[in-house]
Amino acid sequence: MAAPTIPLIAPRDLDFVLYELLEVERLLERRRFADHSRETFEATIATARRIAEARFRPHNRANDENEPRWDGRSVAIIPEVKAALDAFSEAGFMAAQADFDQGGMQLPVTVAQAAFGLFTAANIGTAAYAFLTIAAGNLLEAFGSNDQKRVYLPPMRAGHWFGTMALTEPQAGSSLAEIRTMAKPAADGSYHLRGSKIFISGGDHELSENIIHMVLARIDGAPPGVRGISLFLVPKFLPKTDGTPGRRNGVALAGLIHKMGYRGTTSTMLNFGETEPCIGTLIGEPHQGLACMFHMMNEARIGVGLGAAVLGYAGYLYSLDYARTRAQGRRPGAKGIDAPPVRLIAHADVRRMLIAQKAYVEGGLALCLMAARLVDDEKTHPDEAERRRAALLLEVLTPVVKAWPSQYGLAANDLAIQILGGYGYTRDHPVEQYFRDNRLNPIHEGTNGIQALDLLGRKVRMAEGAAFRALTEAIEKDLGAAGSAAPSDETVVEIALALGDALAATRSVTARLVDAMDKDTDRGLANASLYLDMMGKLVVGWLWLRQASLAAKALAAGSSETEFYEGKRQTALWFARYELPQTSLQASLLTGGETAAYDMRDAWF
Amino acid sequence: MAAPTIPLIAPRDLDFVLYELLEVERLLERRRFADHSRETFEATIATARRIAEARFRPHNRANDENEPRWDGRSVAIIPEVKAALDAFSEAGFMAAQADFDQGGMQLPVTVAQAAFGLFTAANIGTAAYAFLTIAAGNLLEAFGSNDQKRVYLPPMRAGHWFGTMALTEPQAGSSLAEIRTMAKPAADGSYHLRGSKIFISGGDHELSENIIHMVLARIDGAPPGVRGISLFLVPKFLPKTDGTPGRRNGVALAGLIHKMGYRGTTSTMLNFGETEPCIGTLIGEPHQGLACMFHMMNEARIGVGLGAAVLGYAGYLYSLDYARTRAQGRRPGAKGIDAPPVRLIAHADVRRMLIAQKAYVEGGLALCLMAARLVDDEKTHPDEAERRRAALLLEVLTPVVKAWPSQYGLAANDLAIQILGGYGYTRDHPVEQYFRDNRLNPIHEGTNGIQALDLLGRKVRMAEGAAFRALTEAIEKDLGAAGSAAPSDETVVEIALALGDALAATRSVTARLVDAMDKDTDRGLANASLYLDMMGKLVVGWLWLRQASLAAKALAAGSSETEFYEGKRQTALWFARYELPQTSLQASLLTGGETAAYDMRDAWF
Repeated sequence: MAAPTIPLIAPRDLDFVLYELLEVERLLERRRFADHSRETFEATIATARRIAEARFRPHNRANDENEPRWDGRSVAIIPEVKAALDAFSEAGFMAAQADFDQGGMQLPVTVAQAAFGLFTAANIGTAAYAFLTIAAGNLLEAFGSNDQKRVYLPPMRAGHWFGTMALTEPQAGSSLAEIRTMAKPAADGSYHLRGSKIFISGGDHELSENIIHMVLARIDGAPPGVRGISLFLVPKFLPKTDGTPGRRNGVALAGLIHKMGYRGTTSTMLNFGETEPCIGTLIGEPHQGLACMFHMMNEARIGVGLGAAVLGYAGYLYSLDYARTRAQGRRPGAKGIDAPPVRLIAHADVRRMLIAQKAYVEGGLALCLMAARLVDDEKTHPDEAERRRAALLLEVLTPVVKAWPSQYGLAANDLAIQILGGYGYTRDHPVEQYFRDNRLNPIHEGTNGIQALDLLGRKVRMAEGAAFRALTEAIEKDLGAAGSAAPSDETVVEIALALGDALAATRSVTARLVDAMDKDTDRGLANASLYLDMMGKLVVGWLWLRQASLAAKALAAGSSETEFYEGKRQTALWFARYELPQTSLQASLLTGGETAAYDMRDAWF
Repeated sequence: MAAPTIPLIAPRDLDFVLYELLEVERLLERRRFADHSRETFEATIATARRIAEARFRPHNRANDENEPRWDGRSVAIIPEVKAALDAFSEAGFMAAQADFDQGGMQLPVTVAQAAFGLFTAANIGTAAYAFLTIAAGNLLEAFGSNDQKRVYLPPMRAGHWFGTMALTEPQAGSSLAEIRTMAKPAADGSYHLRGSKIFISGGDHELSENIIHMVLARIDGAPPGVRGISLFLVPKFLPKTDGTPGRRNGVALAGLIHKMGYRGTTSTMLNFGETEPCIGTLIGEPHQGLACMFHMMNEARIGVGLGAAVLGYAGYLYSLDYARTRAQGRRPGAKGIDAPPVRLIAHADVRRMLIAQKAYVEGGLALCLMAARLVDDEKTHPDEAERRRAALLLEVLTPVVKAWPSQYGLAANDLAIQILGGYGYTRDHPVEQYFRDNRLNPIHEGTNGIQALDLLGRKVRMAEGAAFRALTEAIEKDLGAAGSAAPSDETVVEIALALGDALAATRSVTARLVDAMDKDTDRGLANASLYLDMMGKLVVGWLWLRQASLAAKALAAGSSETEFYEGKRQTALWFARYELPQTSLQASLLTGGETAAYDMRDAWF
């Protein structure tokens, strides 16, 4: 088990990302955050860290070994889960971003997400219940009627009622156009729902007094496809007029799904209106369900990316501690067979696996929190043009923010296992669980393949390429700053050169692919996943350049934290040498309109 | 669960590898195999497939869900395991390679390994007991005394007694030099052992009448390090004079290890001589234990590589079937929202994930069986120079054969999960178990990092570079043949060009690194893992060129199996475009003596 001395996310790095890279203190200038201060931000993070370590981390393995069980009547979950979630709610985190006048903490999204990352790193299975509730609450806040908000929001923000997102159906999978759950208008303005959902996380349990499902369904007579989908609020218990949970609604647990990891979170099959009437109320306008969902998706996808990054992070720090304390083997060049064993970290191959992890997880954390910072800008920047710019950047970055950490956070977990060797493969250490838990992230909240289609098919073309331009111009600006910094740092210059090449390649590839899509959509999109990976390297490379520039500046200014900053700069260099140059091969495949996979026929497999 | 109609390894591909690529029928010319025929080979494979599908595959999931339990007295394992292993033994597979006059099937290693691959693909947890027994038996046959062989070999070859390999110790891990288990000579010529071993697969159970441990230990007063390690035979029950198991020996189960996957195979901590005397007998000469082990390691490592390839293979075929039968989503270019959903395989991104899997698993299978074919040549080729050449090739290829499939077979399993999406993450489908089971393969039988040091530090330099030369000359010969084939096939020509570049890069990098190691061993070996991956791409690219050449020839000759051969050629093309060009980036890092990771200091992490 993780010794309590190993942090979940390195405190110095989290401070660096928040206060140096993302300058969250500048948010204090905004009216919404005027009552906050660096001290309140720090206190929030400190509280999150304390609760995450004391209440979430200790039962992470128990959650895995005792997955929720259903006896046909209720779902049993180990008691530590409810205790942890109660502590989370009592500390106010369910309402971290909500307004003060709703009893919220009115925190910037950036700070709230940083805090959430600590809970996820500690125990993603338990933390997921909270994040689903927060997401459902945000949806309600954005689109719910006053009545809906009055009844449902306070108990959700207090953590007494939990929420879910009920989108997926067994036959439809990623393809929401194929959703079949039906909603029939009733005389009183409510709807009766009928249908089945699958993979509904937190879909049933006894952790909260009520469960509020956000359900996608079709109103009788709705248009086919995605334009006929509406969003409904379906409570497990219908609230009484006094606001307390009343009689059972006709949403029934049809079964629990047993997963590879992420076992602490119930994954359910739910039936709506099968035996009892299932009463729901419409959220927003009819047939606008997907639009509502999309509104929330950026934040949900930041949550997935961040979860993947911090699971990678927890594994990195665990394997780092192991490599520092375990003595084994000798350096290949050591003379004499009597030489004492050295620490694992003295082996070049172990350092390779550590620096790759560091590059992936610190890069992923910076990426996700930068996206959260853009949400803050989009919502609260005083300048209209800057809000618009943040919104565009967020659109084009969201697929990367969801997909890149979910791939490379998992790769980091794989390396952590490898450093521990046979021990890493056992359930006596947490790294194998991180790996299993993390494997969900490339799948849920839109598979990475879906993200790739979203990026290339929609985001880089949207607003006549304005989102893509906003991104490339932002990168260019930082390249310019790195090039003109004085005194010049030769490592930063090397990184900037590599990033400049990647940027040029991405621009020319993008133009070429937009052209190709105009001619033949299917063919032009055939290599979207390769394009997404290339874009991920570019964007994370950009964040590493920014981190290296800050580090070089601090070192040149005589900072006493030389080790921290040297580590940042060196890791950025590793990324520039190992990851960025791969974009050149990817660019040549993409520019050439590579079709080896596209041309492969069914019968040839 | 895998429907019984989905094969474990595609029959046509296995035939292609055996009879077209590796020409195993040519082995029939050799005296040792003169009594065999293509029919006996085919019957062997058919029997293996039948038993694997009927007796091994059905309890693969049950093995995972009911891992062995120890109540302090005995280890309980679900009964299907013993039933399957009995069927394996009764069909003669425990003695597949043994001489006829020992009751064996006297099969070529190539055919035996192909058969073993089917059992592994069906259920690696159960199959492992058999392979450990076969490996222990082979060790005994090579180095045991006549007495040892007389007593132990017949019940092992019959499958009544099982075997283990007891190398690893808790404090030593991969570093065998640190082994501490001691052996004290007794008056009767036997030894009393004292010490502890960990991660001993099959170390205790009730599946067989006896368990024969092959134990590495130090004789009192032995030299330090690896030159003081001897090999001992330690039975769980000391045989009586009539050959039946007698009283319990002092080897005690200290605990079972709980793993991420591979759960059907007990992984044990064993104590030797802790409370009762533990009696062992020396195998081979004192202090020659590692030399004995190394003798067997090539075959053991082929087994690990093959296991990784076929787990990848089983997942590939499962996801292929799923992609062919599940209808979901529309092509991005489809007009109208009413278009019916298409099969998953119609999506370009799914074909990408399928062709990558096909390239990895068919490439891995070909690689491992080629290595087995080299073992046959090393042992039975009539020409002394060819035996020597095979031995050299095998030496340089073994690290690749172990490591490449264990990395890319796992990558294939990852893609199989992704194709199934949310379903792939559940335990209702076998792909998540393949992924977990396969994650052991980069670790055991020498971690991939150890393989990299073996390749670069030893194998490419051995015999003044003769092994490396044998490999590059073999590749060059096939490149020449591909270039001069008539009629020329433009796909094959493209693949040959890519492979030629990779070969040239590998040659120049190798020369550079040998130089660098001469100057500074640690620095020269720092990027050994990168070198190993590069070599893997070269070698598997070579095998894909050979497969593409055969396919082009068959197509040009008007074969009726156009779909099979088109698929081979197209997959080779994918490999040449996606995998081989990566060697150029790797070469530039290696040639430049890349040190970003090497220079990273402990305090900078």
